[in-house]
Amino acid sequence: MKKQEVVIIGAGLVGSLLSIYMSKKGHAVTIYERRNDMRTETVEAGRSINLALSDRGIKALKEVGIIDDILGIAIPMHGRYIHTAEGIHAFQPYGKTGEFINSVSRYELNCRLMDLAEHHGVSIKFNHKCEDIDWQKNEITFHVGQDELPVVPFSLCFAADGAFSAARLAHMLHHNKFDYNQYYIDCGYKELSIPAGENNSFLLEKNALHIWPRKDYMLIALPNTDGSFTGTLFFPFEGPLSFERLTTKEAVTSFFKTTFPDVVDIIPDLADQFFNNPTSSLVTVKCFPWIRDGKFCLIGDAAHAIVPFFGQGMNAGFEDCSILNTLMDLHGDDWETILSTFQKLRKPDGDAIADLAVNNFVEMRAKTADPNFLLQKKIESKLHERHPDKWIPAYSQVTFHPEIRYSTALANSEKQESIMQMVMALPGIEEKWDSKEVEDLILAQFNSHTNNNTLHKQA
Amino acid sequence: MKKQEVVIIGAGLVGSLLSIYMSKKGHAVTIYERRNDMRTETVEAGRSINLALSDRGIKALKEVGIIDDILGIAIPMHGRYIHTAEGIHAFQPYGKTGEFINSVSRYELNCRLMDLAEHHGVSIKFNHKCEDIDWQKNEITFHVGQDELPVVPFSLCFAADGAFSAARLAHMLHHNKFDYNQYYIDCGYKELSIPAGENNSFLLEKNALHIWPRKDYMLIALPNTDGSFTGTLFFPFEGPLSFERLTTKEAVTSFFKTTFPDVVDIIPDLADQFFNNPTSSLVTVKCFPWIRDGKFCLIGDAAHAIVPFFGQGMNAGFEDCSILNTLMDLHGDDWETILSTFQKLRKPDGDAIADLAVNNFVEMRAKTADPNFLLQKKIESKLHERHPDKWIPAYSQVTFHPEIRYSTALANSEKQESIMQMVMALPGIEEKWDSKEVEDLILAQFNSHTNNNTLHKQA
Repeated sequence: MKKQEVVIIGAGLVGSLLSIYMSKKGHAVTIYERRNDMRTETVEAGRSINLALSDRGIKALKEVGIIDDILGIAIPMHGRYIHTAEGIHAFQPYGKTGEFINSVSRYELNCRLMDLAEHHGVSIKFNHKCEDIDWQKNEITFHVGQDELPVVPFSLCFAADGAFSAARLAHMLHHNKFDYNQYYIDCGYKELSIPAGENNSFLLEKNALHIWPRKDYMLIALPNTDGSFTGTLFFPFEGPLSFERLTTKEAVTSFFKTTFPDVVDIIPDLADQFFNNPTSSLVTVKCFPWIRDGKFCLIGDAAHAIVPFFGQGMNAGFEDCSILNTLMDLHGDDWETILSTFQKLRKPDGDAIADLAVNNFVEMRAKTADPNFLLQKKIESKLHERHPDKWIPAYSQVTFHPEIRYSTALANSEKQESIMQMVMALPGIEEKWDSKEVEDLILAQFNSHTNNNTLHKQA
Repeated sequence: MKKQEVVIIGAGLVGSLLSIYMSKKGHAVTIYERRNDMRTETVEAGRSINLALSDRGIKALKEVGIIDDILGIAIPMHGRYIHTAEGIHAFQPYGKTGEFINSVSRYELNCRLMDLAEHHGVSIKFNHKCEDIDWQKNEITFHVGQDELPVVPFSLCFAADGAFSAARLAHMLHHNKFDYNQYYIDCGYKELSIPAGENNSFLLEKNALHIWPRKDYMLIALPNTDGSFTGTLFFPFEGPLSFERLTTKEAVTSFFKTTFPDVVDIIPDLADQFFNNPTSSLVTVKCFPWIRDGKFCLIGDAAHAIVPFFGQGMNAGFEDCSILNTLMDLHGDDWETILSTFQKLRKPDGDAIADLAVNNFVEMRAKTADPNFLLQKKIESKLHERHPDKWIPAYSQVTFHPEIRYSTALANSEKQESIMQMVMALPGIEEKWDSKEVEDLILAQFNSHTNNNTLHKQA
């Protein structure tokens, strides 16, 4: 194998993990990161961000041999813990026993991955902002503090610089047929920290992802290792109940008291946090092509930024790395083939997880408190128990089955949803949901929809 | 009315026309144009481009009092002149008698509009490339040859700099929730000039838009005042028959001999033109928002770039100017209201004409030679004759009815198409297409689809 001088733009989660993969393959890897070294700084208020690490991400971390380093800073979440407006609590397991996702702090994870990257011989240069890329000379111009503009040559470059990728912009602006789509949902988000109780005790159920679904908006909270929870309010930008309208501390407190009464008690400085923490927006990015010849490739959010409602942004990016690794094993030095195959495989999957994530936004905020929806999930869960290889709920396919491609999971979920729509419309379904009649009907429909009676798995 | 210092970016068709409108309203207008003054240059080979000026564009030119200047350089086209693969010719009128579109050279039209703009007191500064816009200071930085970077203040700025608008990029990059979508169709285009015959005679029927529909690709030709025609080949970039594969003069000549035999005879230097003229791509751009406060607005292709298959790109841009003019009359100096109303009205129309144009691409290349399609058009044309206010074919709504909004035309056309699909599936429709039975059926369907039995017109 020919050793490459690999340049990675962005020392975020995907850039750092990718650098470890590339370094283990024997390449010389340098990461250029726009920001300062976050390990030397404290976390910005309201920007702590928790992520849900699940099987696709775990698979990649295992592959590269660093899973034990990471699971040490993760908290298992076995299901959704629903807080209804009526004050009722309900726990919905994510999957079968042993199927769970993991709450992990973006900050801690990123720091750990950078440490591991450097440990694997990767050089990380901070405060290097990608300015432009010369596609003829294969040179990247960076902007460094004090108007330095160093020019870096590359033979192979990965852009892992996130949803607002500067490298993607340089790719786009010098491309004559670049398809590009970015769109924002009508909700923004704001982080609200729920502090730990005495002796770092957890003030909510520890091993769960908490959701307060309220139709047009919702609050969620994920546990941290220190006993605190990171809460996130997803809320419309505009309209009768929106960020635009909540302009005084009184209004915020009163809104929370009415809407999330059990939260007001555990966030003493709620209104202060509300006004001190930034309101952020949520974007989906789809684009094509991701690659340029055999020398440049978008990866992670830079290729496919998605909204966070399936907890798959990071997992999708880590899976990108894993698939790239497989292609390197298959095609050796043939980077034209590696990158074009990567794009061909992953573009439909990137599009699919973007759509799944937007769909799940509707589900999470509007339906997790709806009795019909809960009944539907109960039927599906029972079916899955009885026919574990045939009927896998969409959430499980995406979260616990890395062998099923995102694009296949999307197709499967659309098929399952259309069957369940029909089933939920049956007269008396509330009584007979657990009957053989209903089960047989679903299976007959499922078989008539499917060619080979099994879910399509990843080749 | 308060006199504004208006900056328009781009001296293309829309920028030039807009400058006349603004100047007539009493504002001080300066246009900054990236390129050299085209009036001092000769037309680039393969970049002559003919446009179809129709009623929406004409309405705007009349409003501003320059229609006579323009019609002098236009050639009426009364219908499509179809050249089938079998060598059959057929003429399809565009509308009723007196309804026609006008072939006009982009170059001549643009030169004329710039002359008229200057005549109206507009100052045009050439070789000024928009580099960036400072949205706090309201200043635009331009790049002028020899690395001059003049900074121009503005109180009101219109970006009329086309599909690849630099001003839109400055708007997008400094915006925290900008929806943006650009996508390319799989076909490119190449211009091929058909010279005039002796004494500037026309070698094809003069007053028609010629089409050689061939399913996956097509050739069209529009007349010029000097007897020549500008031909344009719309052709796949990749695939068995594509620009990628036609790599030798022999291959080009042989392809044209087989596919467009009547064209080979009238373009003596066909293969030379094919390789000398550039291959261009076709993009659709949708974005939002178009405006920033009461001081900046995208207009024309910069706001809504579309593919050329409905002949509406320029007409839509001219209509933008006309609607802006109406809003200036209504709202005087209230630019916040003028621009926000403009965006509210025109965004759905820009989206609609973009979709109509892509749909018409399919219709033009695939269907204009299809007997079923021709029969459908014949039925619709007869219906229109008998019920001129009730059934207006989509093409007519878009082309000859500026009082019908694009978004309404799209909704109407979808309704009509679904009715016609049902009608075309009737057994024996070939025989009974002109019967009272069929007419009554269509009208009954139409009425049941429509609330008030008339097409929705523009308020």
